[in-house]
Amino acid sequence: MRIAIDGMGGDHAPFEIVKGCVEASKKIEHDIYIIGREDEIQNELDKYTYRKEQIKVVHASDVITMEDAPVKAVRTKTDSSLVRGLNMVKNGEADLLISAGNSGAIMAGGLFILGRIPGIDRPAIATTYPILGKGMSLMVDSGANAECKPTNLLEFATMGSIYMERVFGIQKPKVGLVNIGTEESKGTTVLKGAHELLAKSRLNFIGNVEARQVPNGVCDVIVCDGFVGNVILKLTEGLAWSILQLIKKKFTQGLRSKIGALLLSNKLKEMKQEFDYSEYGGAPILGVKGVLLKIHGSSNANAVKNAIIKGIPYVENRVIEVIQDSVLELEEITQSE
Amino acid sequence: MRIAIDGMGGDHAPFEIVKGCVEASKKIEHDIYIIGREDEIQNELDKYTYRKEQIKVVHASDVITMEDAPVKAVRTKTDSSLVRGLNMVKNGEADLLISAGNSGAIMAGGLFILGRIPGIDRPAIATTYPILGKGMSLMVDSGANAECKPTNLLEFATMGSIYMERVFGIQKPKVGLVNIGTEESKGTTVLKGAHELLAKSRLNFIGNVEARQVPNGVCDVIVCDGFVGNVILKLTEGLAWSILQLIKKKFTQGLRSKIGALLLSNKLKEMKQEFDYSEYGGAPILGVKGVLLKIHGSSNANAVKNAIIKGIPYVENRVIEVIQDSVLELEEITQSE
Repeated sequence: MRIAIDGMGGDHAPFEIVKGCVEASKKIEHDIYIIGREDEIQNELDKYTYRKEQIKVVHASDVITMEDAPVKAVRTKTDSSLVRGLNMVKNGEADLLISAGNSGAIMAGGLFILGRIPGIDRPAIATTYPILGKGMSLMVDSGANAECKPTNLLEFATMGSIYMERVFGIQKPKVGLVNIGTEESKGTTVLKGAHELLAKSRLNFIGNVEARQVPNGVCDVIVCDGFVGNVILKLTEGLAWSILQLIKKKFTQGLRSKIGALLLSNKLKEMKQEFDYSEYGGAPILGVKGVLLKIHGSSNANAVKNAIIKGIPYVENRVIEVIQDSVLELEEITQSE
Repeated sequence: MRIAIDGMGGDHAPFEIVKGCVEASKKIEHDIYIIGREDEIQNELDKYTYRKEQIKVVHASDVITMEDAPVKAVRTKTDSSLVRGLNMVKNGEADLLISAGNSGAIMAGGLFILGRIPGIDRPAIATTYPILGKGMSLMVDSGANAECKPTNLLEFATMGSIYMERVFGIQKPKVGLVNIGTEESKGTTVLKGAHELLAKSRLNFIGNVEARQVPNGVCDVIVCDGFVGNVILKLTEGLAWSILQLIKKKFTQGLRSKIGALLLSNKLKEMKQEFDYSEYGGAPILGVKGVLLKIHGSSNANAVKNAIIKGIPYVENRVIEVIQDSVLELEEITQSE
């Protein structure tokens, strides 16, 4: 397998990207291609001991920055590390691409360069959502499509189920539709339509779920439009941060508290780790014709390593082909309307 | 002032309701009317020492339960404590009504019995959102209107600003529009339209805010449709609960942790209190022609007491009239489209 990674994307590129690749290379046999400015990447690589036949640098002179307008950047920066990487996947020179760069550009690049899987109307970003003490759920869509039709939500549910089954080995993943009440009559017209389609599908649809149940791990696949998904992800981030700040403040007030906090320091560290969803790998852009994973802009070497390792079953278990095969069934459900 | 309260609504009625009324009566001079089954309410009241001329029972033979279909219940259960209370406000026999009962019925009752303030298209529920360590923001709408037009969001912002200014004394409350990015070009068509209207208004509009910023207290009035508002509220509840459960689990693992937790017990209690938004009073149904406050179904006596006390400035500072007066200005903004 040939794993390509955007060496220039993200807040800590190329340093953390290269370090993560070296760490991953010690755990796997597959080839890793780091794409970006050759001298910068090689400079980082030279800091480590690594097998030169396993990690290779692919030169790309340009970089898409966080400030670039996504669509324009993908169209014009043809020698950027991201566009170069996408073309490698498209041309069969790489089996997957991982990038910590501009999310909009990753999405736009996926659509324009790799293209949609025929029959999938709206590719989506699937993000792992941490379930404290219990693992994770997959949220589709977590930001690509602010407005959706019922059929799009059915697509998200189907693609998410296939991903959870094939990549995380979860049999018959439970699918929940985010809504403002559990009764099927609840919510917007779009959600009522989506409920109807999901109920007719062969997915393990458990019905509507309220946002309150999401952090509890009520389902394996959380289905929502990209607006709601973005709100859920960002609010979780913001709230977790606020709570950790409050803990920090409270636990350093007075000697008694400080001693208490010292005794609990390991536990506090463990708690912080529970929010680290990078251990589950990158966020797949589901619905594009190729294995494309987005990781957080602030990803460190460990997140890079995890994305590489978790990317392997995504390729090996033929997720793209299985999604492609599911399209006919999706059409049957939506056309029986 | 005559404060009416639904004595039968909520999980702990009439016990906690009556207790809260008695506690509030010691802090205020106003009259309190508890509406419900006279014998049950009187039975509870008899447990306390209270001024009989200050707390009175208004008999209503029926109760709207959590299982009742809201609209039907309001139409048919005409001698329920809720409908009785709403009629008291409508007929000028009470200045405000507080209920911990069926939220849908409170909303429906507000619309059918009190009616809309002329010019307000969609009344909304405004809920206080706890900002850890810093107070609260007001979120409008937090669940009444799953789908909204841009003008509705402008109404929510206007009513929320007036409420924050008049009830909490916040000058020029900062208004933020929940969106998936801070740039004005972000989000759905409805949100782009709302951004345009808000920018033209005289409100202190700070622009789009991301869900990540909400727990941080970035604005005083959080504007969103009822779907997103519900997701934000419920997710906050669910996540805070999950985190507290995790703290509980981690902090009782091993002797060292247990001692640490013991030393921090006061701080942990303080943290839990930060999530208790009942200290800011009930959630006003803004846009109906009368002062109507909804409190959580699980409200205890303290929440009831706070809702009563915070309800006073809502009446005294003529919030309903000020909203009424703002309608002309709203029309100017929307008609200049």
